[in-house]
Amino acid sequence: MSVEFTVYKGSASDGIVQATTNHPLPKGNQVLVKITHSGICGTDEHYKHADMVLGHEGVGIVEQIGESVTDLKVGDVVGWGYIHKVCGKCEECLHGDDQYCPSKEQYGDSNHHQGSFGSRAIWNAEWLYKVPAGLKPEHAAPLMCGGATVFGVIETYNIRPTDRVGVVGIGGLGHMAIQFLAKMGATVVVFSSTESKREEALRLGASEFYPTKGVDKLDVPELDHLIVTASFLPSWQLYFDIVKRRGFIYPLTVAFDNLSIPNMPLVTRGITLQGSIICSRATHKRMLNFAARNKIEPVVELFPLTKSGVEEGMGRLREGKVRYRAVLVA
Amino acid sequence: MSVEFTVYKGSASDGIVQATTNHPLPKGNQVLVKITHSGICGTDEHYKHADMVLGHEGVGIVEQIGESVTDLKVGDVVGWGYIHKVCGKCEECLHGDDQYCPSKEQYGDSNHHQGSFGSRAIWNAEWLYKVPAGLKPEHAAPLMCGGATVFGVIETYNIRPTDRVGVVGIGGLGHMAIQFLAKMGATVVVFSSTESKREEALRLGASEFYPTKGVDKLDVPELDHLIVTASFLPSWQLYFDIVKRRGFIYPLTVAFDNLSIPNMPLVTRGITLQGSIICSRATHKRMLNFAARNKIEPVVELFPLTKSGVEEGMGRLREGKVRYRAVLVA
Repeated sequence: MSVEFTVYKGSASDGIVQATTNHPLPKGNQVLVKITHSGICGTDEHYKHADMVLGHEGVGIVEQIGESVTDLKVGDVVGWGYIHKVCGKCEECLHGDDQYCPSKEQYGDSNHHQGSFGSRAIWNAEWLYKVPAGLKPEHAAPLMCGGATVFGVIETYNIRPTDRVGVVGIGGLGHMAIQFLAKMGATVVVFSSTESKREEALRLGASEFYPTKGVDKLDVPELDHLIVTASFLPSWQLYFDIVKRRGFIYPLTVAFDNLSIPNMPLVTRGITLQGSIICSRATHKRMLNFAARNKIEPVVELFPLTKSGVEEGMGRLREGKVRYRAVLVA
Repeated sequence: MSVEFTVYKGSASDGIVQATTNHPLPKGNQVLVKITHSGICGTDEHYKHADMVLGHEGVGIVEQIGESVTDLKVGDVVGWGYIHKVCGKCEECLHGDDQYCPSKEQYGDSNHHQGSFGSRAIWNAEWLYKVPAGLKPEHAAPLMCGGATVFGVIETYNIRPTDRVGVVGIGGLGHMAIQFLAKMGATVVVFSSTESKREEALRLGASEFYPTKGVDKLDVPELDHLIVTASFLPSWQLYFDIVKRRGFIYPLTVAFDNLSIPNMPLVTRGITLQGSIICSRATHKRMLNFAARNKIEPVVELFPLTKSGVEEGMGRLREGKVRYRAVLVA
């Protein structure tokens, strides 16, 4: 007995390939999910050269469960983000920092036969999150990676409701960060290259908005935290000058260049430059509940979950046109 | 009534200038100190182009006190490090992070007429630390800035006795960091360019020693923390590879170049790059007590506290020959 998936993969030529894969039915702790939605993340662009199924912001409906699954039942709406191996016995796992388990694989199942750009997927139950009532699936999908990335910073590094928090860049991550921070009562200070997104930023909950293009010095009251979600690396000196002594900067941009960090302000102001990637599973669950209770609503553009839909959505993301997260719908 | 100091200053020509300055006798909260010892810090080299008295690792004997001084008396042995203004009302001050008070001045008194390269100094009592019994003044002096800098990291960022802690560079700061860490029971992992300081590092308390010159990849079990005290900026990639996920790196080097930090390991390993400078006054007091109780003994080279002694000591420091802290003795 097996089940057939239609999947959308990367390829050496960068073109999207539609394929059919066959998988044994779920057993033990496994769950078969019929995919209804998938967000498109910038990281998919990095993986599209590889022969692997793309997508890691999935939402769907439980279609069948293995015999030892106890927490999920057929018909449940579930989501998932990056799925990787965890050993359960290293310090990182034992401390609950499972996103940093050294044994983890970067992406997908070990053979990359699965992802969320497809008709179905089979995952171990511990990687599937129930989507809370009140959270629409097209809103839940972008939370699975983009939301987890920014909420991971907020929760892991104890950003507080009394803080002034800067957000650099209003894209997939930034527009969710603004909402999370505003809904927790923090002062949200947004930096964007031009004025074009000012109204949107304020509508999403920003308290202050500053365009940065051509600006050498920002005249901004100091920030406790600065979350950098820009798609390219910013001028660090500009931002080091407006972060408080003992303040925090989180560079979340996936960029393969080195960061060129001004040493003296880092040292003399006691600033923390904090790396962070997605979040632990415990934090992921807290995020989803917070999002549902507080009406966090990613702004989405919908595309069909087909080869041409994948191509169109990824193309718009590549061109920087998405406002603010592309979501594929089956 | 006034008191005359002999002082040693920087100058536009970089030469050390001996001068005589006159100061009113201490009043109110002020304390007149007869200087007996002063450490020579790398930062003095940065200030020697300026018309200001050098030195900020002072130790001496209280000679006279103002009428409102209650915690010190004539004859007390006291030390001091960087002295700066604190407002007492900003967030940093109220949180006890007085080293980061935004109103602080970089160095010395407002007119730079004082320092610790001289015969006497007058400071407000709250900037003078009693040297605990059992701590020799020539050992106390280097603790006032160099010791405070490394102990500040240990105490402020909760480095624990169970941690594996790397120390890059065995100089004024590094050789004290090794001792502090070893005496608190941590595993001390030392990195130095060549083998020449191996025996000394082990004698000071290092558990492991690795030469780094010409090394592309370090084969070292992962570290929880890495304190970088080298006099020049290291290859960051080398060290990011051996710091644990969610580990900490502290670049303490005073360098005016930018740090070129590998972005992807920072992000994907969740590493913290933590700026830090000296320490709070509360931590400074805890350091001195810890040092006295645990027999922390900076390795010192002694020079006379005279113009030629200053020149000789600073010259050896500039040439990288000091093993491991130069101290001027009156």
